[in-house]
Amino acid sequence: MALLEDLNRRHAVKAYDATKKVSKEDIDKIVEAARLAPTSSGLQPFQVLVVENQELKEKLVKGALNPECMRDCSHVLIFAGWDRYTAERIDKVYDYTTAERGLPQGRFNSYTDMLKKIYLAQPAEENFAHIARQTYIALGLSLAQAAELKVDSTPVEGFDNRVVDEILALDKLGLKSVSLMYVGYADTPNDWIAPMKKVRTPKAEFVLDFK
Amino acid sequence: MALLEDLNRRHAVKAYDATKKVSKEDIDKIVEAARLAPTSSGLQPFQVLVVENQELKEKLVKGALNPECMRDCSHVLIFAGWDRYTAERIDKVYDYTTAERGLPQGRFNSYTDMLKKIYLAQPAEENFAHIARQTYIALGLSLAQAAELKVDSTPVEGFDNRVVDEILALDKLGLKSVSLMYVGYADTPNDWIAPMKKVRTPKAEFVLDFK
Repeated sequence: MALLEDLNRRHAVKAYDATKKVSKEDIDKIVEAARLAPTSSGLQPFQVLVVENQELKEKLVKGALNPECMRDCSHVLIFAGWDRYTAERIDKVYDYTTAERGLPQGRFNSYTDMLKKIYLAQPAEENFAHIARQTYIALGLSLAQAAELKVDSTPVEGFDNRVVDEILALDKLGLKSVSLMYVGYADTPNDWIAPMKKVRTPKAEFVLDFK
Repeated sequence: MALLEDLNRRHAVKAYDATKKVSKEDIDKIVEAARLAPTSSGLQPFQVLVVENQELKEKLVKGALNPECMRDCSHVLIFAGWDRYTAERIDKVYDYTTAERGLPQGRFNSYTDMLKKIYLAQPAEENFAHIARQTYIALGLSLAQAAELKVDSTPVEGFDNRVVDEILALDKLGLKSVSLMYVGYADTPNDWIAPMKKVRTPKAEFVLDFK
């Protein structure tokens, strides 16, 4: 029941204590959960950017729906997807995978040929729509990992992607921001959502059973 | 380290033992992880459909990239998103939430007005793109929950959405399939990926630190 307990306990924190920092060890584990996340065809088409620098956080505040959280949290994680699939990116992943597995190079060529045929024929926006979805698997697992460590967090879509991409020069990395995650320790007296009951769609409405 | 251990141990199973069924108790926990998943504005714009019926699974095989997995797994979960946001759907969630929290009805009106202003002005496809992303948070957490229970699973995008939507008459529910999850117990001798090393992008490439 460990995961369910963690998911029941966590909530999207609305106020952080600016005096408390999350340890490097814990940040590493939170990012590791994202790195281990399963992704479509194992391509892991994204990176996680970790911002601890206060000046940089202040710059990123522009366009954030909850600027105080950005300022006061300990670390901001940015889930940034590849701007598109390319033959080079696909080959790099599979060349590395086959090498790590001690398999002959080219072992997965028919599979990667199929992936290239599909993805390279799509416009970049269609690629990115697929890539962005994958980042949410990782976001969810990082949130769960933070909860396990009793570290507070907030998943964030309420920010200006263009501002974040520009400030971090993500285009030079071939990346585009998708979502953020604030990580830190709640300022409980000011975290207005903390005392409220966690509410979810009742099970009878959420699940549909085909016996 | 519980979650990281689970994530390290799990893999996308490629062959299931058709004689082994997953208990109702375990299926309930796997679905519960999806129900507890955080979503944008707490709207939970999706449902999880659970298919155990073998005849129905045989029908869904059409268009599946790994038909044997669909046939032989114990249960198929379908993550199906709302076809679009509507005022009624948004109000229903917030009316229920305020009631459950013992708050006055309308407590979140300014927030839901903002959500309606944004979402109802978008075409359905733009709504659905956002909705589909949310389902991936839940998919990831269900995969992690299965791993915790030592239940095997496979996240699945390789299927024909139109076939699945038609067979399950999802349009009548205002839903569209996004991804599947096969749940069961691996047929290890035939699960060709089982003996292979788990490979992920090296940490030095995956994480970018802004100190």
